[in-house]
Amino acid sequence: MPPWRNTELSVEERADALLAALTLDEKVAQLGSFWDDKRGAGEVIAPMQDVFSDGRPPFEHVVRDGIGHLTRVFGTTPVTAADGVRKLQAAQRHVAGASRLGIPAIAHEECLTGFTTLGATVYPAPLSWGATFHPELVEQLGRAIGDDLRAVGVHQGLAPVLDVTRDYRWGRTEETIAEDPYLVATIGSAFVRGVESAGVVATLKHFTGYSASQGGRNHAPVSAGPREVADVLLPPFEHALREGGARSVMNSYAEVDGVPAAADERLLTGLLREEWGFEGTVVSDYWAIPFLKAKHGVAETVDDAAALALVAGMDVELPDMGAFGGLPGLVRAGRVSEDLVDRAARRILRQKIELGLLDPDWEPGGDPDADLDSPRNRALARVLAEESVVLLENRTHVLPITAAPPRVAVIGPTAADVRALLGCYSYPNHVLPRHPELAPGLPVVSLAHALAAEFPASALTVADGVPLKDRDRSGIPAAVDAARAADLVVAVVGDRAGMFGKGTSGEGCDAADLELPGVQGELLEALLETGTPVVVVVLSGRPYAIERFRARAAALVQAFMPGVEGAQAIAGVLSGRVAPSGRLPVEIPRSSAGMPHTYLGPALRHDGERISNIEVAPSFPFGHGLTYTTFEMGGLELSSDLVPTDGDVAARVRVRNTGDRAGAAVVQLYASDPVATVTRPVVELIGYRRVELAPGAEAVVEFRAHADRFSFTGIAGHRVVEPGLIHLEAGLSSGDRPARASFRFTGPTRRVPARRILTTEADVVP
Amino acid sequence: MPPWRNTELSVEERADALLAALTLDEKVAQLGSFWDDKRGAGEVIAPMQDVFSDGRPPFEHVVRDGIGHLTRVFGTTPVTAADGVRKLQAAQRHVAGASRLGIPAIAHEECLTGFTTLGATVYPAPLSWGATFHPELVEQLGRAIGDDLRAVGVHQGLAPVLDVTRDYRWGRTEETIAEDPYLVATIGSAFVRGVESAGVVATLKHFTGYSASQGGRNHAPVSAGPREVADVLLPPFEHALREGGARSVMNSYAEVDGVPAAADERLLTGLLREEWGFEGTVVSDYWAIPFLKAKHGVAETVDDAAALALVAGMDVELPDMGAFGGLPGLVRAGRVSEDLVDRAARRILRQKIELGLLDPDWEPGGDPDADLDSPRNRALARVLAEESVVLLENRTHVLPITAAPPRVAVIGPTAADVRALLGCYSYPNHVLPRHPELAPGLPVVSLAHALAAEFPASALTVADGVPLKDRDRSGIPAAVDAARAADLVVAVVGDRAGMFGKGTSGEGCDAADLELPGVQGELLEALLETGTPVVVVVLSGRPYAIERFRARAAALVQAFMPGVEGAQAIAGVLSGRVAPSGRLPVEIPRSSAGMPHTYLGPALRHDGERISNIEVAPSFPFGHGLTYTTFEMGGLELSSDLVPTDGDVAARVRVRNTGDRAGAAVVQLYASDPVATVTRPVVELIGYRRVELAPGAEAVVEFRAHADRFSFTGIAGHRVVEPGLIHLEAGLSSGDRPARASFRFTGPTRRVPARRILTTEADVVP
Repeated sequence: MPPWRNTELSVEERADALLAALTLDEKVAQLGSFWDDKRGAGEVIAPMQDVFSDGRPPFEHVVRDGIGHLTRVFGTTPVTAADGVRKLQAAQRHVAGASRLGIPAIAHEECLTGFTTLGATVYPAPLSWGATFHPELVEQLGRAIGDDLRAVGVHQGLAPVLDVTRDYRWGRTEETIAEDPYLVATIGSAFVRGVESAGVVATLKHFTGYSASQGGRNHAPVSAGPREVADVLLPPFEHALREGGARSVMNSYAEVDGVPAAADERLLTGLLREEWGFEGTVVSDYWAIPFLKAKHGVAETVDDAAALALVAGMDVELPDMGAFGGLPGLVRAGRVSEDLVDRAARRILRQKIELGLLDPDWEPGGDPDADLDSPRNRALARVLAEESVVLLENRTHVLPITAAPPRVAVIGPTAADVRALLGCYSYPNHVLPRHPELAPGLPVVSLAHALAAEFPASALTVADGVPLKDRDRSGIPAAVDAARAADLVVAVVGDRAGMFGKGTSGEGCDAADLELPGVQGELLEALLETGTPVVVVVLSGRPYAIERFRARAAALVQAFMPGVEGAQAIAGVLSGRVAPSGRLPVEIPRSSAGMPHTYLGPALRHDGERISNIEVAPSFPFGHGLTYTTFEMGGLELSSDLVPTDGDVAARVRVRNTGDRAGAAVVQLYASDPVATVTRPVVELIGYRRVELAPGAEAVVEFRAHADRFSFTGIAGHRVVEPGLIHLEAGLSSGDRPARASFRFTGPTRRVPARRILTTEADVVP
Repeated sequence: MPPWRNTELSVEERADALLAALTLDEKVAQLGSFWDDKRGAGEVIAPMQDVFSDGRPPFEHVVRDGIGHLTRVFGTTPVTAADGVRKLQAAQRHVAGASRLGIPAIAHEECLTGFTTLGATVYPAPLSWGATFHPELVEQLGRAIGDDLRAVGVHQGLAPVLDVTRDYRWGRTEETIAEDPYLVATIGSAFVRGVESAGVVATLKHFTGYSASQGGRNHAPVSAGPREVADVLLPPFEHALREGGARSVMNSYAEVDGVPAAADERLLTGLLREEWGFEGTVVSDYWAIPFLKAKHGVAETVDDAAALALVAGMDVELPDMGAFGGLPGLVRAGRVSEDLVDRAARRILRQKIELGLLDPDWEPGGDPDADLDSPRNRALARVLAEESVVLLENRTHVLPITAAPPRVAVIGPTAADVRALLGCYSYPNHVLPRHPELAPGLPVVSLAHALAAEFPASALTVADGVPLKDRDRSGIPAAVDAARAADLVVAVVGDRAGMFGKGTSGEGCDAADLELPGVQGELLEALLETGTPVVVVVLSGRPYAIERFRARAAALVQAFMPGVEGAQAIAGVLSGRVAPSGRLPVEIPRSSAGMPHTYLGPALRHDGERISNIEVAPSFPFGHGLTYTTFEMGGLELSSDLVPTDGDVAARVRVRNTGDRAGAAVVQLYASDPVATVTRPVVELIGYRRVELAPGAEAVVEFRAHADRFSFTGIAGHRVVEPGLIHLEAGLSSGDRPARASFRFTGPTRRVPARRILTTEADVVP
């Protein structure tokens, strides 16, 4: 038995032995991938595929020396789980057989809102994860997805997205978790822990800067300095590596201050490897390596692009090997050091060994009978959806609707559209639009359907009113008539996710502004003018500016692509069957003016109309969400008002359910640093805890934060904790922070070590 | 005679001697200023004044040890030239008398669109300077303004603004020259040369980053990395110091990546002094030092703010000394080194000596009979305005209007508004709004007036149609009737500048989007529907998205606040009396979507709908402007196709007037660097030359550019020229570059020295 198959040896020893036994061509083959994307239906699946993947040699030729990854065997053209397993097994047997030393491939798939394949459960989109403020639940989500991937023989999932929301116009905002780095970090790490606990490799993306593109334009350059990158964009990645245990990282398409991430050695090697000690693999976003030539202009040829990326620290090219395929020639010509090929190959071989792919008893796994939409999945999808729906406003206390109104009009383009419940990276929105024959089979009900079930005693009329984004107003009069004839209107507006301009949200579907798409705003105006009470439900992938409807709507409900059980969850919130408990992971802005802006700012203190006429105070602040009960908070008690710059501070606050219904309070702790050597956010979430409370019940939440949690990138470019005052404020949103106390960091400015403390403990104490 | 009054000695010797003779309090007094802003009419002149300048001691107390600057004696409350001279003379005598060693003050004034005082000529705003592409003319402007300042005893003018346009939404866009750094640099330097040649100190502002604030919100933080700062924002300052000879620099209010400019030692000392060798003074923007505490949160007290700013390299506090007034105490308490006070004091004393303020024969200057609106000024204002009007489109060739139409309707809120012709920093828009009694006396005619004079044979009807920014549509029907009854409509839309929300353009008047303000777009729609030919004139301080009117307008004309002679200039362009020759210094964007964006990008190559649905290609590109004649360009001939990375390249192109009217071609040379180690703009203006050509005449323009002109901030953070291909393209706009040639830089990557070559020679050769 060759040493690399000897499970008695360490992973490192096995990888070294295997590496030493491989030829240059065999090593390079491990750095590439193969995508069987056009051979099925002959379709173009991805927007750049015809440009960058055309004219490729066939599978048998590509994998003649083995291959690093097999790309999206399940997620490209519709296959049942059983067919997919058979297809993957056949491919794996071929790869292992073709490869001289019998090395199978890592099979990767997309899995952001669940396994992105035909028939799998579609969970809520990441903004909904953020809205739960419930990491334990999101960890279950990661585990469930990981279990399903593993069940069919898939080794790696290309999730989560840890880009911090920076510009709501960006189409991929729906894929982000929140606009606060700490919420992204903790929710994202929980997802990663779940996936990795199933034995599947989680992939952190996109490293880094993607969400901060100019004007929210997809792939546009990023104007950001190193401090903003370090203090806002990077922390979720650091957290998910250290606290989540992620084993793979995907580069961002972005260029930050002129340097594309795929060619950024300081990022991919200096920071990720040398500073953070990451030992997993760096995989390229699809075609990011040839983009170095074609889009960024930092390489003259694709070979140059391959060399640049490899030097920078890229290990595996996805989705094929149009660039890294040239590496053997580059090594032989002396243009690239073979050591760099070895460096990358060792990382992926180590991962294959960890995954058992080199074990003596390896067989291509996968259970053809795997149930990818199991009752367990469905139950989890339901709870996640229920905890993510945000009750923004309940002005007339029309909610919960305890007495069913006789006549209900459900109006709006997303009311009867099941796809409006699902994110862009769900299979139904990502792939199925090219297979309309399969769409009716989706096991998901629309909100209109769910309302009919929720209010069986009510007579429902359902109308689109207006189309999603076309400016056709012809349906408005009939919608108005329906509204006039009803006792209650549920207006359902927002997005449908799609790829590359086909939707109003999703990859390549950037927004020109933050008005509701098309003429949905005009529909809402018309409905609000009828005098019939209107409950507005926004089903969207980004926050929209809805301020002008606010004073006339009876209630406002926000859901962020809540998944296949989302309609029932929203209906349950409306009826009161479900206690609303979601909190905003992003602001709801007042208008499109002055974008981009998020609650972090960094904002000038005392900004106001005397400086600019543009008002960026939101309609509803980050962290906001109403319930059907009321909470009262006590004062904030600190363990000390003097804390060394290397010490801990504990803060306790009592919260009490003072209403007559059960509900979940999300106790949020914010910090502000009124004086620092560089400008700091006006407030910043430093910790949070979701607490379920029965009527009359109370709980004490204790936050414990090390000084590292208050650190930032100082004037010299290092992460520091500075002496001086810190204000802590606990409350129920970033705009409602009634419990206040302050302490002072004492001692010298402390330079924070690379392995800093990343998490604020937040526990309910007896 | 004390040595500092001995003109036989060097400035340095005199300054050293004077400094040595001063007490600490006397030295600190030189670092401050006094503003007699509230003592006249009891009014609040500036938005932060009541916060930061209230409760100050009286003049006599403040200047008891002398004072560095006297702030805006002319420009605050309305005074005639004669009254201002007397007031300034009295103040100077008092200052010199109070000061133990008899040191007068430097008197500074605003002068961006001319001397900002009652009755002085208001020239076109800086975007109009950019539109001329005519540095020699702008140098005359600087000289005329300098002469007027000097004539009344003023020593320093707070202009020009060298912020490169980055976000059209920013209210101060009208104060910027262009969105191209080289155009800003060359036009800005020309202005500075003019001012300085009159013996007046020019002040470069705002150093740096101000124009790149998030969302175009005034004072909002700037997200920009060091490469963007170095390659886009800084070059105009470097150029105007080296090639213009500016003797003062004002900090920017901005914080760039968390560091406010007023506290940025790397910027104010490291770059400005140590790298660039600047020896003049750094003056604070008004209240920028107390803002370090109040707005940026980088100082706990105003004393701390003073110390921070002084350490960073601030020399003089404006407009008063609310912060630097605390320096004596800080020095005595050992919190600030007296050496830093000396460093700043030496700089301002040197400048006072240079200005003759310490000469034995010094008398407070100023001619009470100075004519601040002289025929010379008026002639210059007229030529500048004429050369700045941009003919965007002449679809039906309705222009020039050679046969006067019998009935002309002049409609729009800026048609009869003389203030719409003037920038925010003009006296009529800056100060007079608080003195309406003086407004009727403005010696300026509206565009409606000028059209009446231009077309005496036509019957004119004039109507606002709609208000400037209120959403009152009641005047539209009457406007439509007037349009229907006319043979030609001249629709005049756009901005009126104001301060802090009072206008639609200007300081603190940021735009929510790029639609015409208020319901002006609806007015235009209604006028275009009448069928009467409509010439649209946009009189604005920023480009607006006018794409949707384009296909129906007979012609489109853009003028950027063209000054007191602007109406006649526009009327002349319409009649053909003036040959249009202005070129766009900014793009006219297609819509507000995807903002911010300028022609520089840096843009991804091959960007397009497959990546983002948002289209940022403009309606009219940077550099665009039609004429009443036609030009033909020959090929581009290069001196060599191989150029060392420390060599020169010369490029010749022939341009011929092929029409039957005289006209000015602006030959523009663009460079692109298809492969570099960092991402580069898709194209970039590298040189330009305005050429007047008679019908049938031709000229050969030769550009000569050193390799330094193609340098940029490389991957390691240094400015370099890299070997490799460069494309040069000459044409008549950034969107029309027919003459093409390429060369290759040869040799090693060269690190560019601090004193790099900044200008591309562009000459008409025989």
